Amino acid sequence: MENGEIPENANEHCPGPQSDSAGKSDACEGCPNQQICATAPKGPDPDVVAIAERMATVKHKILVLSGKGGVGKSTFSAQLAFALAAMDFQVGLLDIDICGPSIPKMLGLEGQEIHQSNLGWSPVYVESNLGVMSIGFMLPEPDDAVIWRGPRKNALIKQFLRDVYWGELDFLVVDAPPGTSDEHISIVQCLDAGSIDGAIIVTTPQQVSLIDVRKEVSFCKKVGVQVLGIVENMSGLCQPVMDFKFLRMTEAGEQIDVTEWAREHLKERAPEFLSIIACTEVFDSSRGGAEKMCREMGVPFLGKVPLDPQLCKAAEEGRSCFVDQKCGVSAPALKKVIDKMMENQGLSRMLVDNNA
Amino acid sequence: MENGEIPENANEHCPGPQSDSAGKSDACEGCPNQQICATAPKGPDPDVVAIAERMATVKHKILVLSGKGGVGKSTFSAQLAFALAAMDFQVGLLDIDICGPSIPKMLGLEGQEIHQSNLGWSPVYVESNLGVMSIGFMLPEPDDAVIWRGPRKNALIKQFLRDVYWGELDFLVVDAPPGTSDEHISIVQCLDAGSIDGAIIVTTPQQVSLIDVRKEVSFCKKVGVQVLGIVENMSGLCQPVMDFKFLRMTEAGEQIDVTEWAREHLKERAPEFLSIIACTEVFDSSRGGAEKMCREMGVPFLGKVPLDPQLCKAAEEGRSCFVDQKCGVSAPALKKVIDKMMENQGLSRMLVDNNA
Repeated sequence: MENGEIPENANEHCPGPQSDSAGKSDACEGCPNQQICATAPKGPDPDVVAIAERMATVKHKILVLSGKGGVGKSTFSAQLAFALAAMDFQVGLLDIDICGPSIPKMLGLEGQEIHQSNLGWSPVYVESNLGVMSIGFMLPEPDDAVIWRGPRKNALIKQFLRDVYWGELDFLVVDAPPGTSDEHISIVQCLDAGSIDGAIIVTTPQQVSLIDVRKEVSFCKKVGVQVLGIVENMSGLCQPVMDFKFLRMTEAGEQIDVTEWAREHLKERAPEFLSIIACTEVFDSSRGGAEKMCREMGVPFLGKVPLDPQLCKAAEEGRSCFVDQKCGVSAPALKKVIDKMMENQGLSRMLVDNNA
Repeated sequence: MENGEIPENANEHCPGPQSDSAGKSDACEGCPNQQICATAPKGPDPDVVAIAERMATVKHKILVLSGKGGVGKSTFSAQLAFALAAMDFQVGLLDIDICGPSIPKMLGLEGQEIHQSNLGWSPVYVESNLGVMSIGFMLPEPDDAVIWRGPRKNALIKQFLRDVYWGELDFLVVDAPPGTSDEHISIVQCLDAGSIDGAIIVTTPQQVSLIDVRKEVSFCKKVGVQVLGIVENMSGLCQPVMDFKFLRMTEAGEQIDVTEWAREHLKERAPEFLSIIACTEVFDSSRGGAEKMCREMGVPFLGKVPLDPQLCKAAEEGRSCFVDQKCGVSAPALKKVIDKMMENQGLSRMLVDNNA
């Protein structure tokens, strides 16, 4: 009966567990929850009140969601946090993927620990204006499995929101696990849907991912969270021709590495290829991809980001893709997506104020 | 207190809710669960008994797990089911990803519905020896979000195991969502860990995925499910050179499509390239990938499957990759993985019997 929901096994005319007549009304006769309802404290959940107080110093809250896993949601969250911090905002990044926290690694913070102060739990800081909180910082062994059912996950999320001392934040970016289950219901209920700026949904162009994005959009509509937009990630793989390896298949079906020969051969016969980029669709987007879906569902399309092995590498190594030229194929696309979101939300003005 | 677990809020010397003295022992004095424990029926969960009866006609049960999402777990499950069915086994494929069911699409069964018979729920059949069950068949609208907390998901999984009439099965393949939470605990408890042949864990070569695989292996060890082996999926992207598109970057950073020119140019200047395959690592595997991790953790390595856009397409279209030559880069690798698993488990013998 968290947050005053009517339990599934309640009697037909249940007055609601928050009502003054809870457990005492005629309708409660014989209900399995009667005793709990009659004796439980009424009124708003004190945790939600404490969370609202804690969040009073946070200007903007952005959820990063995905329907399917492995679409690059955490990579996006991490790079969004890096980008906002590079704009001189005060940024917090909260990882609520309890069973598979990848944020510590993607921010280069593996092995770090959380410290307690009299103000609450201290986030782990990448830089003075980029703090991070994740269950990944709380595991004694990195291989340990977190085998938790929903209620324990919900309790930890509540604790993250209530007990972490973020200080003054311009942005709190919340990286959620894929799907629409406990973590998602909890974060929206705890933060209060109305106080969340909105959600960015990350997808790949493949149909199986787009189907799940539709579910995610339905979820946002149902709980009253605005969809800030959809990002199509891994939208084709692009890489300089010379970065590829080359194989030849023998008649017996064996693969022989001919990379050296191929590169030399190209240099000699077709040197124009040294500066050419080769691209391929990894996921079939012949049915229109995310852009078409956005039109159909009436939500903003924020742009496409190609699958860039260099971006994967930056994520693995916990680096920002914006500080050097290595992610030349993906970083400009990511930046465009973030700028568009900021502009749509009228947040670009903050940037001007920041630089004033 | 599902399955006799000791509740988290129990008193210190809780005798266990299944014990005869539950709710009546001295230790129960003042425990919030005292009344429920004292009156609840004791003994084995009748559902678990019913499930064991239902599963008596299933020879082998294989879980397909992954730590992270989007590593191709459902694609693997689908193709494993296709492969086993092509070997003339009776195969069932159960999708317990409640919030993001992709199995119906990957088996080409979108829009199908489940039928009731007096024997139970009927799976949806791809062929007479390949039946499929998923919540995807039960949603009135494909876009509908399943916004369920754990207990409801667990109840549906129980129902799938108890109420679906599979008939005689050689293999039941269970496709789980990523992670180690409600669905995973439920399936292992309901099926009884000891009756499960084991789990195949799918990963990509990237560190963030391998970290989560370690958690998945820990989970299997903890609950007593054998790890049949690890599959490294998306292990580099391979594709004929002529299938790529080619771009040239202008000095202003604009990309110009030069595919036609490039293909012609190659044909003319370096025709040897017409039969060459270009490969690239999508995910950084410089730290040894899944094979090294398997050695470290003492679990079998089943092999690598390259990221093949044609396999993605087959999955999107719900086709087996084994029936034609389109997935020439990935299908042989997948087949090797499956054969190795069968051989390790002594299941290849069944195949001989089948063909006898």
